[in-house]
Amino acid sequence: MQPIKDIIICGGTHGNELTGVYLAKKHNWLLANPAAAALCRRYLDRDLNRCFALSELKSRKNSSGELTRAKEINLLLGKKGTKTAPDLILDIHNTTANMGITLILSSKDPALLAISKVIATEFKDVRIYLQPESREESPYLGTVAKRDICIEAGPQPHGTLNAELFFKVERIVFRFLELVEAWNNGILPKIGNKIEVFAEIRNIDYPRDAKGNITAMVHPALQGRDFCKLKAGMPVFMGFDGKEILWQGKVCYPAFINEAAYYENGVAMALTLPAKDA
Amino acid sequence: MQPIKDIIICGGTHGNELTGVYLAKKHNWLLANPAAAALCRRYLDRDLNRCFALSELKSRKNSSGELTRAKEINLLLGKKGTKTAPDLILDIHNTTANMGITLILSSKDPALLAISKVIATEFKDVRIYLQPESREESPYLGTVAKRDICIEAGPQPHGTLNAELFFKVERIVFRFLELVEAWNNGILPKIGNKIEVFAEIRNIDYPRDAKGNITAMVHPALQGRDFCKLKAGMPVFMGFDGKEILWQGKVCYPAFINEAAYYENGVAMALTLPAKDA
Repeated sequence: MQPIKDIIICGGTHGNELTGVYLAKKHNWLLANPAAAALCRRYLDRDLNRCFALSELKSRKNSSGELTRAKEINLLLGKKGTKTAPDLILDIHNTTANMGITLILSSKDPALLAISKVIATEFKDVRIYLQPESREESPYLGTVAKRDICIEAGPQPHGTLNAELFFKVERIVFRFLELVEAWNNGILPKIGNKIEVFAEIRNIDYPRDAKGNITAMVHPALQGRDFCKLKAGMPVFMGFDGKEILWQGKVCYPAFINEAAYYENGVAMALTLPAKDA
Repeated sequence: MQPIKDIIICGGTHGNELTGVYLAKKHNWLLANPAAAALCRRYLDRDLNRCFALSELKSRKNSSGELTRAKEINLLLGKKGTKTAPDLILDIHNTTANMGITLILSSKDPALLAISKVIATEFKDVRIYLQPESREESPYLGTVAKRDICIEAGPQPHGTLNAELFFKVERIVFRFLELVEAWNNGILPKIGNKIEVFAEIRNIDYPRDAKGNITAMVHPALQGRDFCKLKAGMPVFMGFDGKEILWQGKVCYPAFINEAAYYENGVAMALTLPAKDA
């Protein structure tokens, strides 16, 4: 297997997720969306982290705002889907959900899985999250590289900095780089299957009325309980009228519960299950 | 004393503070900034809650965005500083700071102080906060009325809803209205001085570099400790380099610690002291 050498670390893909913005500034990493960061907004025209599908990057149509920036980043880093693309991108995000440090992998890449498992044994509240993507048409920034990992840190209100989270993410990034080196040299500690990997199944939306307005909130009993077991009969939502909505589906482990940025995307939470063979 | 009869309840003065937005929608209260609420942003052009100084409302210069809306609200409610102004405005806000339910009074109005003290004995985590304003030139929406109270509910990331907080604020608003009635009828329970009132002294900013960029975060030991005692020698900030900055001022009780919306205003926290004779 080829060694992982050319590594890009970036933050501020969403301009109001301040852990990555300020880590990028501190270490001269790639600040992905400086225009949005300057206004402390997730994005200006459209979500930069939905602009990296190969067909969009290659499109010759006039682009503006975030799509222009995506094309710029793609050229800067060495072009998605080509030999000159980076070996690895680490992209730092925040979430308002109580997800601790969640390492999101877009494939079952053996190197990243093995390294992430070491991280999960060394740091508290670290979880591994598998969100398999068809790489070429995936819109995420990380997919410019041959492999990528997204570091989600929460809970943190967007537009704020939590000092503890800031230094924890910083330590994890530097430890990750050491472990990549260990992997390259064939001396990465083996962890086996004792670390749970959560695989994303699907998203569910808030209950909404005919006009698309939400009619319920995350239930207090579910709020903050990311990665905990949800079984049929347990409460999921509470209407503005106080009525409880109970889970009627199969057992699952929700994450991204009550993420601020996903209200507009029709996502109240993502459902996951323990991954097999990960 | 005149009875308090004409009462306006409003939410969504900041469009991303969702407790007030959705309570206003549920009960047909005044949704103060619907344009910002539609985009889930604090404001579009400028902060609506800084548009209500009498000189601005009376200005004949062309206005746009939030100032136009402020003039509209002023006319709708009966004009600031006149007899037809409402007797009372209750304006519902959220904060990312760990402030529980904070009832902010803009004066030592005897009725509102007495009612707030009853609320503070009946509900958990309610605090009374005095922010004396010269009413005429105060820019806050509430000052359109003869008296006003701002209900700050936190901690809640902007752009999200916490169901527990939603129903708690709803219960407090309805209880407040009952207690106004009791006050009008001279049967409000007397609480005396056993409830602490915190008076705002001044705001302090984050440490910043010559370009105005912040160079430190709220210290982990202070994060979430709103209304707790801060003494000389206790940590206040932590630099991005990990260096601690200790408090060198007099004893105080910080609030609005790490409020997202105040980064751009140069406010890391507000300092308060127990009010005398309140």
